[in-house]
Amino acid sequence: MLHGEPFGRPSTVLHLMGLALIFVAAGMGVCALIELASTNRDSGALALGALISGAVGVLLWWRTREGPTRNRDVFAAVGWTWVTMTLFGAVPYLLAGTFATSGVGFVEQLVNSIFESTSGFTTTGATVLTDFERPGRGLLMYRQLSQWYGGMGIVVLAVTVLPYLGVGGLDLISAEAPGPSSDRLAPRVSETARRLWTIYVLFTVVIAALLFVVPGPSLYDSLAHALTTAATGGFSPYANSIGHFNSVLVELVVIGGMLYGGINFALHWRAGRGDFSAYTRDAEFRTYALVLTGAATAVIAVLWLSEPLGGTDAIRAGLFNVVSFGTSSGFGNATGVESPGNYVLWAPAAQIVILFLFVVGACAGSTSGGITIMRMRVLFGHLIRSVRRSQQPRAIVAVKHGGVAVSEDVVSRMAGFFLFYVLLICVGVIALTMLGSDLETSIGTSFSMLGNMGPALGEAGPTSSYADAFNQPARLVLAVFMLIGRLEIFPMLLMFAAPYRVVRDTLYR
Amino acid sequence: MLHGEPFGRPSTVLHLMGLALIFVAAGMGVCALIELASTNRDSGALALGALISGAVGVLLWWRTREGPTRNRDVFAAVGWTWVTMTLFGAVPYLLAGTFATSGVGFVEQLVNSIFESTSGFTTTGATVLTDFERPGRGLLMYRQLSQWYGGMGIVVLAVTVLPYLGVGGLDLISAEAPGPSSDRLAPRVSETARRLWTIYVLFTVVIAALLFVVPGPSLYDSLAHALTTAATGGFSPYANSIGHFNSVLVELVVIGGMLYGGINFALHWRAGRGDFSAYTRDAEFRTYALVLTGAATAVIAVLWLSEPLGGTDAIRAGLFNVVSFGTSSGFGNATGVESPGNYVLWAPAAQIVILFLFVVGACAGSTSGGITIMRMRVLFGHLIRSVRRSQQPRAIVAVKHGGVAVSEDVVSRMAGFFLFYVLLICVGVIALTMLGSDLETSIGTSFSMLGNMGPALGEAGPTSSYADAFNQPARLVLAVFMLIGRLEIFPMLLMFAAPYRVVRDTLYR
Repeated sequence: MLHGEPFGRPSTVLHLMGLALIFVAAGMGVCALIELASTNRDSGALALGALISGAVGVLLWWRTREGPTRNRDVFAAVGWTWVTMTLFGAVPYLLAGTFATSGVGFVEQLVNSIFESTSGFTTTGATVLTDFERPGRGLLMYRQLSQWYGGMGIVVLAVTVLPYLGVGGLDLISAEAPGPSSDRLAPRVSETARRLWTIYVLFTVVIAALLFVVPGPSLYDSLAHALTTAATGGFSPYANSIGHFNSVLVELVVIGGMLYGGINFALHWRAGRGDFSAYTRDAEFRTYALVLTGAATAVIAVLWLSEPLGGTDAIRAGLFNVVSFGTSSGFGNATGVESPGNYVLWAPAAQIVILFLFVVGACAGSTSGGITIMRMRVLFGHLIRSVRRSQQPRAIVAVKHGGVAVSEDVVSRMAGFFLFYVLLICVGVIALTMLGSDLETSIGTSFSMLGNMGPALGEAGPTSSYADAFNQPARLVLAVFMLIGRLEIFPMLLMFAAPYRVVRDTLYR
Repeated sequence: MLHGEPFGRPSTVLHLMGLALIFVAAGMGVCALIELASTNRDSGALALGALISGAVGVLLWWRTREGPTRNRDVFAAVGWTWVTMTLFGAVPYLLAGTFATSGVGFVEQLVNSIFESTSGFTTTGATVLTDFERPGRGLLMYRQLSQWYGGMGIVVLAVTVLPYLGVGGLDLISAEAPGPSSDRLAPRVSETARRLWTIYVLFTVVIAALLFVVPGPSLYDSLAHALTTAATGGFSPYANSIGHFNSVLVELVVIGGMLYGGINFALHWRAGRGDFSAYTRDAEFRTYALVLTGAATAVIAVLWLSEPLGGTDAIRAGLFNVVSFGTSSGFGNATGVESPGNYVLWAPAAQIVILFLFVVGACAGSTSGGITIMRMRVLFGHLIRSVRRSQQPRAIVAVKHGGVAVSEDVVSRMAGFFLFYVLLICVGVIALTMLGSDLETSIGTSFSMLGNMGPALGEAGPTSSYADAFNQPARLVLAVFMLIGRLEIFPMLLMFAAPYRVVRDTLYR
């Protein structure tokens, strides 16, 4: 090492990765304490997991420092950080033998652990857990916490402690979409990240408090569900998800939380500073409200007319599931297989609305997944323009979003994104059918995984386990799809296009 | 009328419509004779149909003449001509009482007649016929003929007799996509149209001759199937379609015909003048060959591995169905519900390949439907470019097709087309599920109708009738989708955007 040079090799990629692992380790540590104080079954697994992640994290963080980053390296940094995090995040499940039921070998346990970890960090909420009594309370809380980390984005969390991050910093945040938007909330990137996390923490605390006040949930339950509501994740320590409480009040709190989590956090920041009309001025927010209202009305009407459900049941089942999927959460309120909340048994007309919500997702810059309403608006504008142009081929028409013309470059990139989305759905459906799933399950699950929803259609409905619905190779495919869905398509592609540089940086320091 | 002005009001729209009806009437007349000479059951219905169409056609044609046409009027002309043609084309079915089985009222007979006529002229091949013994042989031949007219395009046929057509003429031909391509084969538009129809007639005659030589089909059967093979339509006078003959040789001839029909006719013209390498030089043709080979290999492999089928059965069922759907024909070779050719009973992995072919279609400028391989290539190029751009945001990369850069305008229009296609699929699936179909049937049928395939998935498979699978309103929705699929999306939209001008022209001559 030359004298005068600051300590550590300049590599933002590895520095970030180290920080992310330290945060994950901290989470595991806290959950180990919870486990120790409650069921005390899996505390060893959690502690060992924390030790491993922590040791690797500290080593990486200590031996590297922030350096100049190029655009493509930013995507690689985020992509590989996520892959590393989900792999290290699988360790506690594996050590605790969470999936070690009779006849399940080591490889399948490994696959299931990675699946559960990926589903957590990507806020998808699909689960291969069948026996919810087996893992300890601390391990289940860690499972909830993994979604909370993923909701706002671990990279954004890491950025909050990197005060000197330069130009590439905002790219880092926006590369970790669909988390926070790339709107600058503050001149400093680390300050933007800190503000986003501040809203997120406050929001989580409020939901936890509301859930605790409402009759039913214990402190543990309130905290556990607040973490995954804020993240629009959908994990629950109970097999029946929110249906476990069978309480309208709990459902209303969760609905409110999911709706809030599906909105661009930049708007929340402005509202927090007193500018409440920021919401209604935002074109995307208005469409978000419209889509959810329309979808809820349609589903409730279909349920009322086609099912032997009373009005109250139809409204309760329809509203909860529309919000759950319209915000890419994936909570269920079915109390059992035959319950009105089990949408797999609904009329196809109502199921199709749910499938539609899988695709759309909520607002950009929120904790939700899917294509996002902003992109849908721009794509719809592009579509309308194509019609106009076929009528007047020489007319120059700009695609607008909220009164502002969107640059042609952005329109073209979004069209490219959409094409890739469709291609991925095709790849997913082909892969899943090849691996033995039926058509409805394959289509529903591909959409659900790419949109980070959780439950899907057919055999992968809200009351079934992915362990029963898919074989091992299919579960690995789904894990990859969840990651692609969370980080969006281009970062994932560039992750594999750019590692050469990362490898070179690592080997030839 | 002012002296010196040529006779008739200048309206290319009505002039074309008149000509189209005259051709349809001529076809009905010929089929009335066939009916008279064979079963002699529905000859009156066909003759009366010919009289009605002919009278209206001659009146329109006689009172109007070609005039200057604007771009938007061209689309309207083609769109309304097709609507008129399908409605008049439904008359013989209605008069013959083709769908007048017990308990079927007049309205349902009307809906079924329109459905069958639309399915014919759009070369879709979906049918509401359940009892194939009821209609006479002449009426069934008229049903085949309607597909033949639709295959190359009735407007193109009409243009062959309009020698003075000006600048708008080529637009007329290309508005009637996916029929002939807008490649100029000759300096004169009417000459281009005549050449296209010459290839088409010769091609039909060759197939008819080959089918007649092969053991099995009678002269009637040979002609009937040659008409719909050339049109890549899929209608057959038999409920079991090509499966009726249960003959490998017949299937091979039909496969050859479908493959030829799925290629751009401009290439056939060049090959006809000795330039056989025109095929291999064409990038779209090469992709077409690749897609079909890949799909056939995949399907045959899946059938071989997953089904209790011998190698020969797997190859026969796989190859025939891949070509049938890869060219948007929709012929079946199932000899019964339990036959290997009934792809609805295949493993999902093989069915998904068929669904994929529903979307892709064959070459632009052929008689096939679907998005077309040319568009798919350009869209794929756009997608690859998006990836490159996300890596190097300032790079200027052109989308290429066959070594030539595609203009940004065309790329943008094709992306718009694709968005509309996806939107229509969504609308179709939502409409069909609302009208009571299950998810798999709705998805499969929406793709099948927009791609002008014929049979679909689920309840609408190759051995079932659309009359059993869909209720009356659903059948009307499907008829609209077939028209949109045949004329493509933009002409259909402009058809409703521009009629104001047409109405004005008609009323204030």
